[in-house]
Amino acid sequence: MDGATALVRTFLGAGVDTVFANPGTSEMHLVAALDDHPDMRCVLALFEGGATGAADGHARMTGGVGAVLLHLGPGFGNGWANLHNARKAGVGLVAVVGDHARRHLAYDAPLKADLEGVARSVSHWVRVAARGTVGTDGAAAVRAAAPGRIATLVLPADAAWSEGDAPAEGLAPPEEEPADRARAAAAAELLARPGAALMLDGRMLWGEAAETAGRIAARTGCRLMAPHFCARIRRGAGAVAIETLAYRHAGAREALEDVAELVLLGARHPVNFFAYPDLPSTPLPAATRVTELCPWGGAAEVWLAALAEAVGVTGQEEPPRVLARRPEAPRGALTAEAVGAAVARALPEEAIFVNEAISLSAPILAAVEGAAPHDRLDLTGGAIGDGLPVAVGAAVACPGRRVVAVVGDGSAMYTIQCLWTMARERLDVTVVILANRGYRILQLEMEAMGKTGIGRNARAMMDVADPELDFVALARGHGVEALRVETGEALEAALAGALAVQGPRLIEAVL
Amino acid sequence: MDGATALVRTFLGAGVDTVFANPGTSEMHLVAALDDHPDMRCVLALFEGGATGAADGHARMTGGVGAVLLHLGPGFGNGWANLHNARKAGVGLVAVVGDHARRHLAYDAPLKADLEGVARSVSHWVRVAARGTVGTDGAAAVRAAAPGRIATLVLPADAAWSEGDAPAEGLAPPEEEPADRARAAAAAELLARPGAALMLDGRMLWGEAAETAGRIAARTGCRLMAPHFCARIRRGAGAVAIETLAYRHAGAREALEDVAELVLLGARHPVNFFAYPDLPSTPLPAATRVTELCPWGGAAEVWLAALAEAVGVTGQEEPPRVLARRPEAPRGALTAEAVGAAVARALPEEAIFVNEAISLSAPILAAVEGAAPHDRLDLTGGAIGDGLPVAVGAAVACPGRRVVAVVGDGSAMYTIQCLWTMARERLDVTVVILANRGYRILQLEMEAMGKTGIGRNARAMMDVADPELDFVALARGHGVEALRVETGEALEAALAGALAVQGPRLIEAVL
Repeated sequence: MDGATALVRTFLGAGVDTVFANPGTSEMHLVAALDDHPDMRCVLALFEGGATGAADGHARMTGGVGAVLLHLGPGFGNGWANLHNARKAGVGLVAVVGDHARRHLAYDAPLKADLEGVARSVSHWVRVAARGTVGTDGAAAVRAAAPGRIATLVLPADAAWSEGDAPAEGLAPPEEEPADRARAAAAAELLARPGAALMLDGRMLWGEAAETAGRIAARTGCRLMAPHFCARIRRGAGAVAIETLAYRHAGAREALEDVAELVLLGARHPVNFFAYPDLPSTPLPAATRVTELCPWGGAAEVWLAALAEAVGVTGQEEPPRVLARRPEAPRGALTAEAVGAAVARALPEEAIFVNEAISLSAPILAAVEGAAPHDRLDLTGGAIGDGLPVAVGAAVACPGRRVVAVVGDGSAMYTIQCLWTMARERLDVTVVILANRGYRILQLEMEAMGKTGIGRNARAMMDVADPELDFVALARGHGVEALRVETGEALEAALAGALAVQGPRLIEAVL
Repeated sequence: MDGATALVRTFLGAGVDTVFANPGTSEMHLVAALDDHPDMRCVLALFEGGATGAADGHARMTGGVGAVLLHLGPGFGNGWANLHNARKAGVGLVAVVGDHARRHLAYDAPLKADLEGVARSVSHWVRVAARGTVGTDGAAAVRAAAPGRIATLVLPADAAWSEGDAPAEGLAPPEEEPADRARAAAAAELLARPGAALMLDGRMLWGEAAETAGRIAARTGCRLMAPHFCARIRRGAGAVAIETLAYRHAGAREALEDVAELVLLGARHPVNFFAYPDLPSTPLPAATRVTELCPWGGAAEVWLAALAEAVGVTGQEEPPRVLARRPEAPRGALTAEAVGAAVARALPEEAIFVNEAISLSAPILAAVEGAAPHDRLDLTGGAIGDGLPVAVGAAVACPGRRVVAVVGDGSAMYTIQCLWTMARERLDVTVVILANRGYRILQLEMEAMGKTGIGRNARAMMDVADPELDFVALARGHGVEALRVETGEALEAALAGALAVQGPRLIEAVL
């Protein structure tokens, strides 16, 4: 069989059965092979950032390896920003990128580029597949991606079309080193002290891991913390109560003020989003002692189990939990608080709440926190434009669950083409666009700099009010029904309407 | 003064007075400095690919250095594909990319990435600006870009905000080596032989250089040739007749069949767009002798002058010229030929014709060839999604000239956000969308492979018919007036209407 067929069968054998794709001529043999395997689900994105972001959202919800098919260096470039977000999310993702046949690279063809260079700049693992071993190379890529890494397989056209290839068995992942019991015991002792906090990230924030962390907190009395942006965190009534750090230095600093002992379990050292001339880079007080039990990207599950054993978790502990809280029905002109209240009231049980609210997120997240139980997916890498794609991927992964994506208007425009994929795939996604007609976050940053008297050039780069974007027209152009609302009452009605029907809906909430 | 101000003044001093921007928080000091210098024109793109493509189009029309302002690694990633197209166009372009303050890079902040790595993968020149020398670093970037290269200046936030910087004088470009007269004389002798052709590219295809090449052809009898896609080529009645190679191997091979001597003057070795299992990578016959007088990216002007002198050009020669040809008015259902006829008939004198017609380009280009004199800008790097941005940049560069962009529907969706910038800047751009509801080029490639019985997965990745994109709604959503046409008569009327008013218009031509 040819290399393309070997790759498709290898992926299917390894459980990778969905691929988000934006292929081109150099991937035609792969497209033909995919066509011969209808058990592989192929989801087209009209722009590669939609494909990579969707693969990220898909992997966040399956817990498995996401897959994406891209076309040469420029296709990879277009997908780069959401691969960055996936990398920061700690998601396992295989990117297959077609390249010219090897012999063609002797020439400077239009689409020849430094594909390996651009791939390496965001991938943990890069390999160029060879003629005859595409199946084996594909299995290695899936194995490289499985622990939560970005693995890029460059597939030259001649490797895809050459005969004599074969699918490879899914390779066993490398064995995880056992946790050091003495270190786990030492961390357990720290967590029992006053002012102790356990900082979690990645897969520690949902499912059984979050429950175990909650039991550790119940037993030791430590606080549970997480970064500002989480790849996936269980929220809503009954979720384990995990504090997320504020976006701004002052808020994060305040939360950490009384933390004497901070134990990192699969989490990064706390850091502010950006650096400012007069602020430190970390919100951590100088007096806080940091102990890295398991680094970001490490085998956090293994260390969590060891820690639970060390603190004597029995399974009978009752973790601290988020209390149900239903906000008052919003009335009158829309504010971020009103949007938060409306979303909180409307969110169905087991919804997936995609958060790209940027400058308006604090009041919205506060309102939604106590809504019906749900999973929240954030903008992990800060590369705006992941909300719509992540919603696509999450909806493909979880056909029985409702997805509600709250996205700033500026952010939505980076990957607006995802609306079309939502319509094509009939995904149950409700998109709420926060239409404040500008990069509000930048205006806030400019004010924070002390710049007064903003002039023509700054306005030209920070507002999107002239002309106003019409998201209802944009949605309809992509085949998605939409409406515009300007009051809390109208937003509540619109959300109820959108969540009562099948398929995607967009609501432009004018603030 | 701070580094940001030093950079803006350095650019203005070097004649770089327009910047296409999509800034973020780490560029706020630069935005503030731009705000203090209203003689710099700042043009916002809602997506970075729009900014880089616009800088490319701007530079193609000014012949100078284009400039773009991007935000960190993800912003650069989003701009990568159109930087690739600019690189293949041989355009001089400075990309300024904000980065975190150096001290912040000790942490794994969400937006920290391998910025230098992604920058190097498409740039000829990369430098990280240092505190106190941002002016000097900026001058070096402009000098590096001037010969037609991509120069990326990484600007850490602390370098932008640090005081004690100063603007730098525009540095003189390195002196060009004189052409070797003996080599020029030898090439002149080759061009006088039967079956000789001179292959041109880059700046040789317009302006006085094209006229000189035409005189060389008149004196020697050689053919003049160019690649399929040109950054900018003078076309229309009276333009120097330069044959462009066909996209497909067979057509290009046929054109080169009788070429015994091919002299390359600032042009690449001919190569097919893609490799195929049963075709050679180059359309060049084995018997053709290739002489590289000046390589792609070399000082082609210098060699052109030497060649003109060697062949004895007096300035009195009459170059072979394109004849005026006005197609019949198109009637009835739209075809590519009908679109070409309508555009050819409507194109005003000195229009800029942006060509991203992809699979439909052959009949359209053939029809437009003999229209009123114009400049044509093609998709140089094959990374689809440059038509709308290049149109933006060309219109900003040439406010007195009409821009007509003919763009495939699939291609338009990669950078559709450019419509908003056209509206914001009131640009005189007429966009014709070729709505054939699919990646027609991929369907052709699949047929060429011999694949029959296309199934669900292949269709899922090659058609965009379900749902149909509504480009009229998309345009209105971005603030651009639009209408849909389905006949030649309606297209003629729509073009006439669009070209009679100020500002952008979009015409969805349903094929």
